[in-house]
Amino acid sequence: MFERADFSTLSLRMSGCEAEYKDALVVLFGAPFDGTVSFRPGSRFGPQAMRQDSIGLETYSPYQDTDLSSCLTCDLGDLDLPMGDTKASLDLIRQTTERIVADGKIPLMLGGEHLITLAAFESLFVKYPEICVVHLDAHADLREDYLGVKLSHATVMRRIWEYTGDGKIFQMGIRSGTQDEFAFARAGHTELFPLSADHNMASAIAAAAGDRPVYLTIDLDIYDPSCFAGTGTPEPGGINFRDMMQVLNEFTGLHIVGADLVELAPHYDASGVSTALALKTMRELLILIQNQYNGVRK
Amino acid sequence: MFERADFSTLSLRMSGCEAEYKDALVVLFGAPFDGTVSFRPGSRFGPQAMRQDSIGLETYSPYQDTDLSSCLTCDLGDLDLPMGDTKASLDLIRQTTERIVADGKIPLMLGGEHLITLAAFESLFVKYPEICVVHLDAHADLREDYLGVKLSHATVMRRIWEYTGDGKIFQMGIRSGTQDEFAFARAGHTELFPLSADHNMASAIAAAAGDRPVYLTIDLDIYDPSCFAGTGTPEPGGINFRDMMQVLNEFTGLHIVGADLVELAPHYDASGVSTALALKTMRELLILIQNQYNGVRK
Amino acid sequence: MFERADFSTLSLRMSGCEAEYKDALVVLFGAPFDGTVSFRPGSRFGPQAMRQDSIGLETYSPYQDTDLSSCLTCDLGDLDLPMGDTKASLDLIRQTTERIVADGKIPLMLGGEHLITLAAFESLFVKYPEICVVHLDAHADLREDYLGVKLSHATVMRRIWEYTGDGKIFQMGIRSGTQDEFAFARAGHTELFPLSADHNMASAIAAAAGDRPVYLTIDLDIYDPSCFAGTGTPEPGGINFRDMMQVLNEFTGLHIVGADLVELAPHYDASGVSTALALKTMRELLILIQNQYNGVRK
Amino acid sequence: MFERADFSTLSLRMSGCEAEYKDALVVLFGAPFDGTVSFRPGSRFGPQAMRQDSIGLETYSPYQDTDLSSCLTCDLGDLDLPMGDTKASLDLIRQTTERIVADGKIPLMLGGEHLITLAAFESLFVKYPEICVVHLDAHADLREDYLGVKLSHATVMRRIWEYTGDGKIFQMGIRSGTQDEFAFARAGHTELFPLSADHNMASAIAAAAGDRPVYLTIDLDIYDPSCFAGTGTPEPGGINFRDMMQVLNEFTGLHIVGADLVELAPHYDASGVSTALALKTMRELLILIQNQYNGVRK
Amino acid sequence: MFERADFSTLSLRMSGCEAEYKDALVVLFGAPFDGTVSFRPGSRFGPQAMRQDSIGLETYSPYQDTDLSSCLTCDLGDLDLPMGDTKASLDLIRQTTERIVADGKIPLMLGGEHLITLAAFESLFVKYPEICVVHLDAHADLREDYLGVKLSHATVMRRIWEYTGDGKIFQMGIRSGTQDEFAFARAGHTELFPLSADHNMASAIAAAAGDRPVYLTIDLDIYDPSCFAGTGTPEPGGINFRDMMQVLNEFTGLHIVGADLVELAPHYDASGVSTALALKTMRELLILIQNQYNGVRK
Amino acid sequence: MFERADFSTLSLRMSGCEAEYKDALVVLFGAPFDGTVSFRPGSRFGPQAMRQDSIGLETYSPYQDTDLSSCLTCDLGDLDLPMGDTKASLDLIRQTTERIVADGKIPLMLGGEHLITLAAFESLFVKYPEICVVHLDAHADLREDYLGVKLSHATVMRRIWEYTGDGKIFQMGIRSGTQDEFAFARAGHTELFPLSADHNMASAIAAAAGDRPVYLTIDLDIYDPSCFAGTGTPEPGGINFRDMMQVLNEFTGLHIVGADLVELAPHYDASGVSTALALKTMRELLILIQNQYNGVRK
Repeated sequence: MFERADFSTLSLRMSGCEAEYKDALVVLFGAPFDGTVSFRPGSRFGPQAMRQDSIGLETYSPYQDTDLSSCLTCDLGDLDLPMGDTKASLDLIRQTTERIVADGKIPLMLGGEHLITLAAFESLFVKYPEICVVHLDAHADLREDYLGVKLSHATVMRRIWEYTGDGKIFQMGIRSGTQDEFAFARAGHTELFPLSADHNMASAIAAAAGDRPVYLTIDLDIYDPSCFAGTGTPEPGGINFRDMMQVLNEFTGLHIVGADLVELAPHYDASGVSTALALKTMRELLILIQNQYNGVRK
Repeated sequence: MFERADFSTLSLRMSGCEAEYKDALVVLFGAPFDGTVSFRPGSRFGPQAMRQDSIGLETYSPYQDTDLSSCLTCDLGDLDLPMGDTKASLDLIRQTTERIVADGKIPLMLGGEHLITLAAFESLFVKYPEICVVHLDAHADLREDYLGVKLSHATVMRRIWEYTGDGKIFQMGIRSGTQDEFAFARAGHTELFPLSADHNMASAIAAAAGDRPVYLTIDLDIYDPSCFAGTGTPEPGGINFRDMMQVLNEFTGLHIVGADLVELAPHYDASGVSTALALKTMRELLILIQNQYNGVRK
Repeated sequence: MFERADFSTLSLRMSGCEAEYKDALVVLFGAPFDGTVSFRPGSRFGPQAMRQDSIGLETYSPYQDTDLSSCLTCDLGDLDLPMGDTKASLDLIRQTTERIVADGKIPLMLGGEHLITLAAFESLFVKYPEICVVHLDAHADLREDYLGVKLSHATVMRRIWEYTGDGKIFQMGIRSGTQDEFAFARAGHTELFPLSADHNMASAIAAAAGDRPVYLTIDLDIYDPSCFAGTGTPEPGGINFRDMMQVLNEFTGLHIVGADLVELAPHYDASGVSTALALKTMRELLILIQNQYNGVRK
Repeated sequence: MFERADFSTLSLRMSGCEAEYKDALVVLFGAPFDGTVSFRPGSRFGPQAMRQDSIGLETYSPYQDTDLSSCLTCDLGDLDLPMGDTKASLDLIRQTTERIVADGKIPLMLGGEHLITLAAFESLFVKYPEICVVHLDAHADLREDYLGVKLSHATVMRRIWEYTGDGKIFQMGIRSGTQDEFAFARAGHTELFPLSADHNMASAIAAAAGDRPVYLTIDLDIYDPSCFAGTGTPEPGGINFRDMMQVLNEFTGLHIVGADLVELAPHYDASGVSTALALKTMRELLILIQNQYNGVRK
Repeated sequence: MFERADFSTLSLRMSGCEAEYKDALVVLFGAPFDGTVSFRPGSRFGPQAMRQDSIGLETYSPYQDTDLSSCLTCDLGDLDLPMGDTKASLDLIRQTTERIVADGKIPLMLGGEHLITLAAFESLFVKYPEICVVHLDAHADLREDYLGVKLSHATVMRRIWEYTGDGKIFQMGIRSGTQDEFAFARAGHTELFPLSADHNMASAIAAAAGDRPVYLTIDLDIYDPSCFAGTGTPEPGGINFRDMMQVLNEFTGLHIVGADLVELAPHYDASGVSTALALKTMRELLILIQNQYNGVRK
Repeated sequence: MFERADFSTLSLRMSGCEAEYKDALVVLFGAPFDGTVSFRPGSRFGPQAMRQDSIGLETYSPYQDTDLSSCLTCDLGDLDLPMGDTKASLDLIRQTTERIVADGKIPLMLGGEHLITLAAFESLFVKYPEICVVHLDAHADLREDYLGVKLSHATVMRRIWEYTGDGKIFQMGIRSGTQDEFAFARAGHTELFPLSADHNMASAIAAAAGDRPVYLTIDLDIYDPSCFAGTGTPEPGGINFRDMMQVLNEFTGLHIVGADLVELAPHYDASGVSTALALKTMRELLILIQNQYNGVRK
């Protein structure tokens, strides 16, 4: 008789993330929700596109001299979310991260749109009320509402701020928003590093965060559209992969307890380049977290 | 001084639909909602793609020997819908069609996904409780719920049936659905003509509808994907444009009081062919309605 | 030393059209002009796309049981046309076809847009004042002018009619045009077979043309957009390849003295299907002409 | 603790093919090899694209009134094939089908290019020396060699014929090939139904095959490119989905012991329509086979 | 009764440019002409693509801390240009800019190809004979003629030089041209800053222009193709959005009396990134001009 | 009679490479092989895409103030390679470069995948046993084998090292590979400059190579995917065109005896930007080589 194990597992899980759940330090899952997107939807296809193209991902990182397959990451697959029901979708995401956190593991969620960050954050906020949020993005996401909708990709950081209060949210790369959003940030509600993201800003954030637990949310549209065209709302003026490597290098000392990568909408970039960039960013982030827990953060 | 009127109006309204609202028989508007789509979103871009490419639409129909510009159609533009809030979006659509109906005009709604039909139908059901629904589609859309969601593109005809009761819904072209949906239809709840749509079926439907008011909803995925690739869930085995012309020809005697064209998702067909087909279908439908009201239906 | 002949000729000429000019019966060339297109340009890339993809063209026709490479066709390449100067471009095309005709050969021109037909036709009209034109197209192309422009893809058959007078132009497949164009045709100026093209119409045309010399112009958008998406103005309701084979079969007895294939705009069909269809149509047309001259038309 | 089963299995196997290997009647696997393709490669991505988009496949067939999930199909995933080594790749495929056949199950292989059929066929020929091959395709695939290469997608039926001898291969839909290939078939080596495929031909084939075991190989480019643009070598003049339904209906009585679906190259059809057609063809084929074994073929 | 104003105006005008003509400082219009393009046409679709995607444009600029909607810009829509007649098209453009200038307003023209700049420039030259031209581009556009054609996208700056004479044209970013064009510039006819564009060059240009009126023409292909793939003739080695922000910052003191943005050909960049970049460049340019007139230039 | 010379040669050869073979210093040819590619094939279309789009290439280089047409380059077209037979394909390439070298000319090969470099290198190694290899790439290509296959795009530099031994291979830009490959390089087998490529590295390589003959192989995926999306395995973190110009400037003194440009897979970048970048890189490389032989290298 035949065993499935005789066959490639590439169709089953993210390449390099083959740990069993019980052994895993980081637990990966997809939250393919894009229901509140106002301009161009499609980030629901992000996690599956990443798994599909992970066949072309070299698991070894010459940047951190570590192989992803030496990390303990388990890929659970994608959640089945009820499209059209925003609240029920967020509930399912929150239940998932709650269990992962309860099992002493670190969730790494792949979006989907940015609103999903709210549900994952809420699970962690229960356990770590002092939690900080490091937010890499092109957009401030600080609106009070969007066409009257409170739960929206454009309001997610405002909703999170309602939990954390002032001074706990660090924003980098922001180059798009309303005048009100920028005013809100500049009034001291968040620490905003506008227009770009570099190692100096990252270093300042790491210093400010100190030993506190951190939720790291990376909206991939922080990248310049030249590098990352596959997203709903491309914003010129962003960073490139080398900039991101420098930023992550400054994050070595952070105490990351949860993270996400959101807003890959692969259909808008038929070349596959955006998916490749998302994968490499994920690889570096996974290695960063594992190295933290095997070293600094033991 | 300058007048806007010196310039092309092609950027402003659908070509051939330049009547003022007060003069119009048919009122066109876009409902760019695709929030409950389970597979591939993007029908929110349908109405704008149609307006954009209507510059390439010949307004004269050699099939009905009538020019669209001789009809009295007003294009109101697109509704601003709050993405992520299904109920509020449907409310806005319903209010719009209510006013159009109250003004004694016929709404022609451009989708967007199929769920929007529910809101337009409800406005007409209030005025015409005996209303029949003629439903051209690849999918039965008769589910009780979809992953627990009651308001879904996959349940819309079931929701409408809850208003009409048995025998008022005529379905053609249906070639996809669950075993339960087909069983529901075959139990006599709807009149289902499965797998295809032709002039014989259309003739039978027209005879059955008789003088009763009719809401005509055309999910453009009734077309074979060879003709219409630009849709979220393409289903092989559909009809072509000539088949549609024959079907519409049989509908000459119908008493159409409202209609819609839904599920054009233009990004999936970069060739523009799907948008061109949607436009020609809209042209023929508009001329059909106008001719009815100028002749048979006076 | 090295000979170029050691290398593939596929990068050099249309596959199957490798005869030298002096030996050729039919002379192929590209006229990459699309300067008067009102909607979507790009047919200038048609001839080169055909050469490029001719590597995938099987030269043998099972429809006519003949191999294209046994025909005597010379591919001259593309003309260098001065974009932005319509008149100069037409002059260059006319000079080219004049020389081909003067050398006793049959021109087969690859477009480019439909206006180029005028220049090729004029060369042949000088030699054959009794010439008929068989016109396969989705569009009537009978406008008097287009936004004041007399030399336009939308007016080309009207300009040709000014040479031929009534009863010499046979139009098939026409399903788009203004009310005036259809009225012009129906007034007896052309023989119009509207909406479709089939072997009965083709047979009637062949009978009417009799022994007179014929210029055959095929606007490839006569094909349904399902088969041929790669064109500037797709029109639903057209024919497919099998229909075309039946039409061409009826044309066996025609006395073709010149021909063209126009309006392939390959960028609108990234799948390559439209280019493949254009190539197969070209192959069948070339074999048809060669068989005529080797048999019926000796 | 968490179970993987809490999550969607859609990322893991083909939708509707969730049986365990030990329970399965039909065993599905992907052979992502396209190494001998002369024109446009990419069929290696076929099986994964099908799994990915199977989320949008309705498992119920209204054509055969059966749900795919009631069939016993196990999806093993894709083989890891050593690109660049044709022979080693074929060996791996043959070993796989040998084991499936040895376990008393029916292999259904998803290509990949057509050459892979040779390896699967060889496994079955050992067990069933009297086996017939039913071959649906646009191309004859009967060349002796291709640029000197014996193992090629263009020679696969010739290689198979070397095993079966005359009269065992039935070919439908063939509309492309060299003069020699057609001559070879017409000399009685294969039963060739050229240019199209319909229920009459299918009925004749079923009668000729009788009770003998049959390997059914479907090169999806038998479909017209209007329906199926996502393939390396599109050939106008093919069939559509309804034609295929009629053909398969005539195959109800066949004794199918192995089958494959090859030549989906999804990148050439960004609309996803080709993948959807491949999935529906697969669904109907799986149901056909299961019904045979549950009924006629008990 | 219903008012159009109840509906979104997004389908009507460029987002953020909703001023009435009589109130406007800057008047925006599209000149969708691409008739002389030698390589890849399609810039005719630029203005409409920008309007369409302006729904995704955040009107607030964090670079200049100003909201576009606080500026007084009127969008007139697109001109209806007679394709195929270059001279008539230029005449229409010139008449339009003449009226805008006569009304004391600043024209901002959206191309279309670069030749249209000639017509707009001519209107302004009549009023401001001392006018300078600041030219951002990848191409020198200084040819005497192109294949004999004098009015061409490749000759436009030469034609303009025939009006201005030496020393009035400042060119930045130029990295493509014939040896003759570079020699012409270096002979002192224009001030050429080759290969790149940065704030030092911009500062030098601003100093040289001083108080003289300036026509600013931005061929968007000055951007590197990594940022801006949607153009007819992409030229590697260009600038990015941050570079442009620095350049525009140096232009704060310029006396801009007219401007254009040309050569967006959106079909070549299906991701929408090029259109987004064009929109953001337009937003920054509009705010720059308004700030000049409200401050420095009062 | 007519001469082919009246027609554009742009359809026949690479623009700017019109020298006859006997007069040529550099001989260009395409090796359209991509048979061992593990992830995404398609580089076989690279050379033809470059010829096609060379119509849009300005032959003059403002970087080196030289016109490509003043160089003596002959374009032979593409080799006809037997797909599916790796060894036979390499043999054909080797025979071609052998003859070019024997005729005292410099081969410039256009790929195709990177494995073809092995065959070209072998021809030159026979003549120049002391030859060095300068290798620009994103990938180390130093694997011992790939899934057991020794002749693979992923092993090509390892195979070449088996000829050259240690210290003869200089690698720049490498940012992807297994841990073993990096270890192999760092063990002194090659001179590896990881992660990037700049003028300092280039200068160091030029100094190390000195007067020795050099084979220069440029895998175009050394470019960042933002600049060059059209390749099988895009790797974020690469260089841009200006970086490449600086690198090539440092190579002025190299003694280049053979070169190649590989891994353009044009179908993955529908914008044409990648092909444009490949063409400009080719232009600069050809001018660099010609200037070397006319000056430094006389």
